[in-house]
Amino acid sequence: MLLPELREYMNRSFQIKTSARNQFVDITGRVRDVIAESGVVEGLCCVYVPHTTAAVTINENADPTVPADILKRLEILSPLAGDYRHSEGNSDAHIKAVLVGSSVNISVTGGQADLGTWQGVFFCEFDGPRKRTVSVKIISCC
Amino acid sequence: MLLPELREYMNRSFQIKTSARNQFVDITGRVRDVIAESGVVEGLCCVYVPHTTAAVTINENADPTVPADILKRLEILSPLAGDYRHSEGNSDAHIKAVLVGSSVNISVTGGQADLGTWQGVFFCEFDGPRKRTVSVKIISCC
Amino acid sequence: MLLPELREYMNRSFQIKTSARNQFVDITGRVRDVIAESGVVEGLCCVYVPHTTAAVTINENADPTVPADILKRLEILSPLAGDYRHSEGNSDAHIKAVLVGSSVNISVTGGQADLGTWQGVFFCEFDGPRKRTVSVKIISCC
Repeated sequence: MLLPELREYMNRSFQIKTSARNQFVDITGRVRDVIAESGVVEGLCCVYVPHTTAAVTINENADPTVPADILKRLEILSPLAGDYRHSEGNSDAHIKAVLVGSSVNISVTGGQADLGTWQGVFFCEFDGPRKRTVSVKIISCC
Repeated sequence: MLLPELREYMNRSFQIKTSARNQFVDITGRVRDVIAESGVVEGLCCVYVPHTTAAVTINENADPTVPADILKRLEILSPLAGDYRHSEGNSDAHIKAVLVGSSVNISVTGGQADLGTWQGVFFCEFDGPRKRTVSVKIISCC
Repeated sequence: MLLPELREYMNRSFQIKTSARNQFVDITGRVRDVIAESGVVEGLCCVYVPHTTAAVTINENADPTVPADILKRLEILSPLAGDYRHSEGNSDAHIKAVLVGSSVNISVTGGQADLGTWQGVFFCEFDGPRKRTVSVKIISCC
């Protein structure tokens, strides 16, 4: 067995293509792959979305009705048709991005993402379909 | 006086037992204890909740009416009885977890949590009462 | 050309003065300045607000109607005049602070903040006008 090269950090980004205006895309596997590739054993993983009408969150990825219910409620909290000034017609998406947030932190422990049993990482599209980027930064403690 | 062992990182988790369906539990003291135990002087502390129906936030822990008002408003924003598809009856809790978030960052400066005067760290229960876990990862800069 | 001193971390805070009860203040330039001053090439930048009635977020800073629409929607989600118990009359601000969050993470790559094309960093005032503090912690990977 070859040991992975020990790194002090890793920057990696990957593309995703969304298919609906509002959509949760499970990116847990891709985040785990980046952590494995990094060879980092103890550190922090920051998953970051460099967009202003999309976000990233951690929640249940076992039952697809959970993200569906979350998206439906976000639509009530920030409806597409609101009394908005921004002329591009996507203020609802900017608002959702602020409510959900542009990054999540995950501890890397023993070379693994330290997610809870039911937790997955979701890219949150609020103004799709689009091509999007997800950035992952992993920093090592040692 | 014995100097604490200098560490490059520390993983620590602790259990809490919540007593209501919706509840803010002040965990500031426990987070401070983990930072002190770590011996880390300069770094970052990531407080992480490995659950999908709970969250963590930083807000005022001086007047208990503040968390009460926050919880009440969250109930308006994501009511227990909504038009949800998820069959477990806790979609409101998943939604609140996404709105509040699964982690907070605190700078560690001079061996201390760099919290503002009125800031405390709250574990946010949205589907209790339950036994819950809080994970704390501290990474050192030096 | 003098090379900047390589640092393992940097703590820096700066003051801002807000002029309205609810206001987004673009602090992107100041965050970029701190990163440049730090000399950190690869790392993480945590922008932190040590207040309980203010927050920090990342969103579009090109068109000023975007923050205006976000603030207006936040006012609907957490109105000033609600059925609140907290006697200071600013529960709406505490709630907004929880919804938006007290910190953001930005990757530092090649000595620069790794923000997306349309992304800026906003200090979010919800109980102004006030003098406020923004804390920036930068930790280096190498």
